[in-house]
Amino acid sequence: MAMEDIQATTTEGQPLRCKAAICRKPGSPLSIEEIIVAPPMPREVRIRVICTSLCHSDVTFWKMQVPPAIFPRIFGHEAVGVVESVGEDVTEVTKGDVVVPIFLSDCGECIDCKSSKSNLCSKFPFKLSPWMPRYATSRFKDLNGEIIHHFLSVSSFSEYTVVDIAHLTKIDPAIPPNRACLLSCGVSTGVGAAWITAGVEPGSTIAIFGLGSIGLAVAEGARLCGATKIIGVDVNPEKYEIGKKFGLTDFVHAGESEDKSVSQIIIEMTAGGADYCFECVGMASLVQEAYASCRKGWGKTIVLGVDKPGSKVSLNNSEVLASGKSLTGCLFGGLKPKSHVPILLKRYMDKCHDAKFISNYQQELNLDEFVTHEVQFQDINKAFDLLLEGESLRCVIWMDK
Amino acid sequence: MAMEDIQATTTEGQPLRCKAAICRKPGSPLSIEEIIVAPPMPREVRIRVICTSLCHSDVTFWKMQVPPAIFPRIFGHEAVGVVESVGEDVTEVTKGDVVVPIFLSDCGECIDCKSSKSNLCSKFPFKLSPWMPRYATSRFKDLNGEIIHHFLSVSSFSEYTVVDIAHLTKIDPAIPPNRACLLSCGVSTGVGAAWITAGVEPGSTIAIFGLGSIGLAVAEGARLCGATKIIGVDVNPEKYEIGKKFGLTDFVHAGESEDKSVSQIIIEMTAGGADYCFECVGMASLVQEAYASCRKGWGKTIVLGVDKPGSKVSLNNSEVLASGKSLTGCLFGGLKPKSHVPILLKRYMDKCHDAKFISNYQQELNLDEFVTHEVQFQDINKAFDLLLEGESLRCVIWMDK
Repeated sequence: MAMEDIQATTTEGQPLRCKAAICRKPGSPLSIEEIIVAPPMPREVRIRVICTSLCHSDVTFWKMQVPPAIFPRIFGHEAVGVVESVGEDVTEVTKGDVVVPIFLSDCGECIDCKSSKSNLCSKFPFKLSPWMPRYATSRFKDLNGEIIHHFLSVSSFSEYTVVDIAHLTKIDPAIPPNRACLLSCGVSTGVGAAWITAGVEPGSTIAIFGLGSIGLAVAEGARLCGATKIIGVDVNPEKYEIGKKFGLTDFVHAGESEDKSVSQIIIEMTAGGADYCFECVGMASLVQEAYASCRKGWGKTIVLGVDKPGSKVSLNNSEVLASGKSLTGCLFGGLKPKSHVPILLKRYMDKCHDAKFISNYQQELNLDEFVTHEVQFQDINKAFDLLLEGESLRCVIWMDK
Repeated sequence: MAMEDIQATTTEGQPLRCKAAICRKPGSPLSIEEIIVAPPMPREVRIRVICTSLCHSDVTFWKMQVPPAIFPRIFGHEAVGVVESVGEDVTEVTKGDVVVPIFLSDCGECIDCKSSKSNLCSKFPFKLSPWMPRYATSRFKDLNGEIIHHFLSVSSFSEYTVVDIAHLTKIDPAIPPNRACLLSCGVSTGVGAAWITAGVEPGSTIAIFGLGSIGLAVAEGARLCGATKIIGVDVNPEKYEIGKKFGLTDFVHAGESEDKSVSQIIIEMTAGGADYCFECVGMASLVQEAYASCRKGWGKTIVLGVDKPGSKVSLNNSEVLASGKSLTGCLFGGLKPKSHVPILLKRYMDKCHDAKFISNYQQELNLDEFVTHEVQFQDINKAFDLLLEGESLRCVIWMDK
């Protein structure tokens, strides 16, 4: 705390020098360099990052060789930080507040943010911009004065970063940061998809295509909502054991059966089809298999996976008409960052029986099992290796003390 | 009534001779012939048809030359009748009750019928069978003993027909039969799609692709639910005037603009897209246009039109993921025949302010304007001509007195 105070007196309103892990070339190890972080503009906040975790989207854009790829860039979008200083007209947070930056905006003013039906802010719509959302400029430069690009309005692979207030959710400082950071993206996306987008009810049957972190988070969300049969589908049978930690009750080894399609197997396991199917891989053909695995009358398929640009989901018109099934998708699990993330964190902290979840549920939100590795900032490239090798679900990267 | 009593004493439990309009060859005029109607089997009901109306599905199957087409057959599936006699184990209706036969089963016993989320009975699933649903046999033969096939479990182009109790909804006998018969299929499908499947809220914006009877019924349903902007899309600009009778507030002349697609026009008219889009033509490409016309965040596209077998709806996977839109479809507008049809008929009769519709709505369900023509049974082929020429919305056919 004392350190914070000293920093504040010396840095507030001033450019600030700190370390950041910069990606200068696609696919190359990040280089930890000193950069200059400009002070926050109006409605922006400069935060000191406490810890950050690595998500597949970071890796996807780190590898990418063609636009929208752009370099040099600071990746990272799952994090927890402490407010170092605020720009003009920021009243929502103040120096010392603990915040979670989130790639999806929640301006609180537009028709979408004011509606309970949407989480897609119209004021700062989601886009893969390399700039700050409000001014389309950067707050980062290196010591040679070269501009460094932002990533997903967060750029948390830096000791300090600047985030628009629309992208910040204030949280209870008692929450362990290496758990809270998971809510910035992956875990929220999966849990939210089950809770908000699907609206899973107690007793439901669920099928999850793809058991990466997102798919496992869907299982965890479905379990929290009281689903009784949670079927995981994956090409890797080892995922069943991992999945059980997050509520998985059944497993289908994709590609194993020569006689039956995955949808046929799921229809048999559920006596007619799952109530909710989630595509978490990013393959349009799997969306179709998920749709086929849904129960007639009310089955809902939710798309979470990102396929290649231009890929198409193709459904029989007659089945769309006559099956009563529905197809939808969501960003960030359909969660509204500022209102839903604190609810989920509360579920982690005090096993609260929130009326928005089922009332008789006895277990807290399982965040602990997602964190398989932790490294110091100087070893950030290890986090990339672990994810690329399929070793980690989430690797938390602690900023050096 | 006196006549009913006489008939009952003479016909109950016995085969009954009456006139029916038989289709013996695809596309040929129906021939009115004497037939024998067997008494109802257990859980079946024999009804005297009061009036019936012609729906496009009758015409589609009347024209059809290849399977599932089958002849000779008695068409007709929109009707009102009086119970003449009941088979064993029928307790739900009794002789003299007024009933609406409905092509979609509502057995009341299966998981779907017991669920508020589905209207797709599992016990007698919808199929294009030429037989009675429970026994897969016919109750009709001609005077030469040749079996005549059923249609959609109703076959109302006959003075008497036999209908399974799962396909019958008992109604208030005070309701004019030439209005009640409309609820058997077309009008229910459109109104229900807005009311139940979409769940249109007051103040919503709606786009309807195709202004035939179903599309107009969607407009009427949307109006009942309090939608404030109801946009019709059709290639025929004359449909705007007709549509206004059912609540249409705006019109897009499809194909007229060279610069803009229909979805672009609708997005401009609604400042971002319609809340609910309905495809009522039966063209998979129009489903895609409807989906494109929906608002991000919560827009819902509902498929009502029947396209050719095998036709595909193709959507961008990335749009399904990131737009928050959803796609669904329904049979019979998502209505549960036995519970929802009486509510709609009550809306027609007494301008009730049912809590399931909006509370401040002042106008009754407009059924009158759907009935553009009425003919006697002997002139049933005129009803086909009128529909084929695009002259009629609904032509009611009265059984000869």
